[in-house]
Amino acid sequence: MGAEDRNAVEQWGLFEITLQGSDTGNPFLDVDLWAEFTHERGTIRVSGFYAGGGEYRVRFMPEAQGAWRYRTQSNLPELDGVTGSLECTAPSKENHGPVRVADPYHFAYADGTPYYPVGTTCYVWNLQGDPLEAQTLETLRHAPFNKLRFCVFPKHYVFNQNEPPAYPFLGELPRDRAVPLPSFTSPPPPPPDVWDFSRFNGPYFDHLEQRIADLQKLGVEADLILFHPYDFGAWGFDQMPHEVNLRYLRYIVARLSAFRNVWWSFANEYDLMFNRTLEDWDSYFKLVQDLDVFNHPRSIHNCLAFYDHTKPWVTHCSVQHGDLARMATWQRQYGKPVVVDECGYEGDIDQLWGDLPPEELVRRFWLGFVEGGYVGHGETYWNEEEVLWWSKGGTLRGESVPRIAFLRRVMEGVPSAGIVPLSPVRFSDFNSIEEARGWLQSRARDTAPLAGAALGLEAAGWSGSDYYLLYFGAHQPLWRTFDLGQGDFAIDVIDTWQMTVTRFAEHASGQVRVALPAKPYQAIRIERSRV
Amino acid sequence: MGAEDRNAVEQWGLFEITLQGSDTGNPFLDVDLWAEFTHERGTIRVSGFYAGGGEYRVRFMPEAQGAWRYRTQSNLPELDGVTGSLECTAPSKENHGPVRVADPYHFAYADGTPYYPVGTTCYVWNLQGDPLEAQTLETLRHAPFNKLRFCVFPKHYVFNQNEPPAYPFLGELPRDRAVPLPSFTSPPPPPPDVWDFSRFNGPYFDHLEQRIADLQKLGVEADLILFHPYDFGAWGFDQMPHEVNLRYLRYIVARLSAFRNVWWSFANEYDLMFNRTLEDWDSYFKLVQDLDVFNHPRSIHNCLAFYDHTKPWVTHCSVQHGDLARMATWQRQYGKPVVVDECGYEGDIDQLWGDLPPEELVRRFWLGFVEGGYVGHGETYWNEEEVLWWSKGGTLRGESVPRIAFLRRVMEGVPSAGIVPLSPVRFSDFNSIEEARGWLQSRARDTAPLAGAALGLEAAGWSGSDYYLLYFGAHQPLWRTFDLGQGDFAIDVIDTWQMTVTRFAEHASGQVRVALPAKPYQAIRIERSRV
Repeated sequence: MGAEDRNAVEQWGLFEITLQGSDTGNPFLDVDLWAEFTHERGTIRVSGFYAGGGEYRVRFMPEAQGAWRYRTQSNLPELDGVTGSLECTAPSKENHGPVRVADPYHFAYADGTPYYPVGTTCYVWNLQGDPLEAQTLETLRHAPFNKLRFCVFPKHYVFNQNEPPAYPFLGELPRDRAVPLPSFTSPPPPPPDVWDFSRFNGPYFDHLEQRIADLQKLGVEADLILFHPYDFGAWGFDQMPHEVNLRYLRYIVARLSAFRNVWWSFANEYDLMFNRTLEDWDSYFKLVQDLDVFNHPRSIHNCLAFYDHTKPWVTHCSVQHGDLARMATWQRQYGKPVVVDECGYEGDIDQLWGDLPPEELVRRFWLGFVEGGYVGHGETYWNEEEVLWWSKGGTLRGESVPRIAFLRRVMEGVPSAGIVPLSPVRFSDFNSIEEARGWLQSRARDTAPLAGAALGLEAAGWSGSDYYLLYFGAHQPLWRTFDLGQGDFAIDVIDTWQMTVTRFAEHASGQVRVALPAKPYQAIRIERSRV
Repeated sequence: MGAEDRNAVEQWGLFEITLQGSDTGNPFLDVDLWAEFTHERGTIRVSGFYAGGGEYRVRFMPEAQGAWRYRTQSNLPELDGVTGSLECTAPSKENHGPVRVADPYHFAYADGTPYYPVGTTCYVWNLQGDPLEAQTLETLRHAPFNKLRFCVFPKHYVFNQNEPPAYPFLGELPRDRAVPLPSFTSPPPPPPDVWDFSRFNGPYFDHLEQRIADLQKLGVEADLILFHPYDFGAWGFDQMPHEVNLRYLRYIVARLSAFRNVWWSFANEYDLMFNRTLEDWDSYFKLVQDLDVFNHPRSIHNCLAFYDHTKPWVTHCSVQHGDLARMATWQRQYGKPVVVDECGYEGDIDQLWGDLPPEELVRRFWLGFVEGGYVGHGETYWNEEEVLWWSKGGTLRGESVPRIAFLRRVMEGVPSAGIVPLSPVRFSDFNSIEEARGWLQSRARDTAPLAGAALGLEAAGWSGSDYYLLYFGAHQPLWRTFDLGQGDFAIDVIDTWQMTVTRFAEHASGQVRVALPAKPYQAIRIERSRV
């Protein structure tokens, strides 16, 4: 790359500097590379990385349009002091920039477009070989999902006995080794001692980047799981020394943070990684918060015990829990958006987390959304080939997917940033009479026109004072009554399972008795009539 | 009654002394009456009451067979020093005595027969007039319920607008008075000032006793609700002065404590009685604990906030809550049996607590039972006459009742006192990593042969180490695997909705893969084979 080439890159696009340099010694350990990018508004410093074969790269995601100049810094003379410039142009139509927390409890793209997370999980879809990975992408093209959770490292677990096509570090596994059984109740056996943890395997990460770019084209955020416990001695990527973990994080931030659709999920089930302390997790968060100048969303996902999501480096709560009625309670507790990335998966395998009927998964989606948060999907129907969507991707056969697509359309019809829960505390969960009385009185005051009704709902939320959504879950009332006061409202009855919207009243006001079909999975939408 | 008549009464039967005395002044306030009953094992002192018309009564429930003598004490000379005797005989076949807490978490009759509460609620069935009350009793004769919750005082609430046939105090309501609307969010209007709170209306309590006796004949415990908030100024029985409340409790203990099937429920939704403090409730408990020498079960039922059930005068927790997965947590917290008397009712009215489909109510029953506790029934299907079972009794039309009968038969097949929950803590509800790890490790040690399986169950419990019950709720697994070790077990697959028991294996041991039908509401029962 010449010293003063004029490069054009769209806003929130990926700009890359490639430099040739010496590869003697171990460039992963020996070479420091940074670049400063300067715009009239200020300067941003990003780190580069060694890509292999004597190639060094620095990646940058310009967040401001107009002229940028850059200059490299390195302890390797041939990489130091390289300068250049780029012209940051307007984003293309489908490019809304990275997702940020936009409201205490909701998200938006950098250009202001609301982002309602509708995620799914395919933990190691990216390590299944091109035919299956292509099929997964094709499935996603027609699916309602705009976020995909998956792992950097390979996975060894139930229904996951296949070796990945490649490994993140250099080294070679012995043929015909005995792969241990997955178990959380006995300590993991020592892993094979074959990896050179000082040398990353470039093609492994090239492939990962290709998949992130593929998802970006589909409008899907890549919620990258940086560590996970599903190894059990198979490879030992969960048992690396602390300094290797930190080097890995530096490397991955240098490689990936210029992709606008990347999210950092520090772990899946961090609390099952028995060899790490909370201080370890804090240190990972702080390192990435410091290095990632583009400030991608940062979260950590529990199994048994929540991480303290109030810590300042956590941007949103990534939760595993089956009781979506607690959504509003978690919001209040942590003061951040809540995404229940795992609430159980639609399927029929022999695991509590993977045998939900579709009705129940859809119920959890609605409950979480109407309580002001977001819920994630997964599918675990057993098949002979052991290709379960939740882990390997492939095709979707469940009945929840079209209902989730329907819910996404309802979400996108919410007038303002997102839903505010109307009944943030559940019955019977107060610690004292005084607390309960205070709540009861505040409900009577605050939530008109739905005050009385809200006391008798599974979930209710509002948005912008002109929009109310009420969800009845498995309940089967014959009717509900509302006092709409002087307002002029349109009322719809939504069958969330049959995916129908039935207009009950075009212009309603005062006391209204809304008839319901006395069967589960109904919702009522009350929206101020547009003049 | 003569001084030395020889009376025979069966063990736990009701023995009554009736005495004539002066009725000048106000006998309710002026006359003190007690009797001491002496057996070779000791002496018991019970209070009497004024029954009206110059009649005074003392009631006694002998708990030991053989000869008893008594002697009265009174400040009214003609009631003082009356003596007599009785012969306590063996109980008749259907008489097992009063119910006691028999195990930290379970119940038994006084004769040792296990008692598994299978309750229902008809709040004021006893105030609906004889035809409907007779119908309720006839319904109960064919129903699976062995406990009925109902109120001493009349009820004014939704679907409860009728006046009772009589009132507990003397006084007369003005005709054509305007009855206020029920509302918890505005303070209640002042009640009509017509009652003489110093004079109980004897026939009102005679009728109550008749109904308690009717239930006793059907083998149904009378879980009597002593106070409740559903008045809203209609009569003011929730707004009586403190000394009237205490006098009422003394009167009711004197009248009712000799009925072996009486339970004391100090309130329904005590926390919605905004004019009472916790100290008031404590004082009621302490008074009754002191006066009721027969030590009937004592509980108090919440709406929004639990009472502190660890207090020594509480015998068991009477809970309102919809999340039965917390059963084992409440057991640990309070160290007492837990009866979720209200978890929501099967029905279709416009109330969150009264619009459950039968599948969901049955799921809650099973979940609570397999987690080591007990759950109560209620039915609230709307009808033109506003005769809803939950409040007025009548007939049952729901689909949960036969399934509850089926569950009761499963309960009665449990070999020892009751179910011990196998997984007393739910996923994701730990407060720290350390707590979660400790639990995970203890599960691996303690719960063989079902250790692994228990990690993936909605609910599981065991009894006597020879009996395991596993319940899958709304989950739909295709199979589950168990390690039965060296044991010899019979395995049944139970469809809790279809009410079928299918023998999967007569003699199973070692690793067993139990096939399931991949639909909701299944259970597996594993029982050591009888030699």
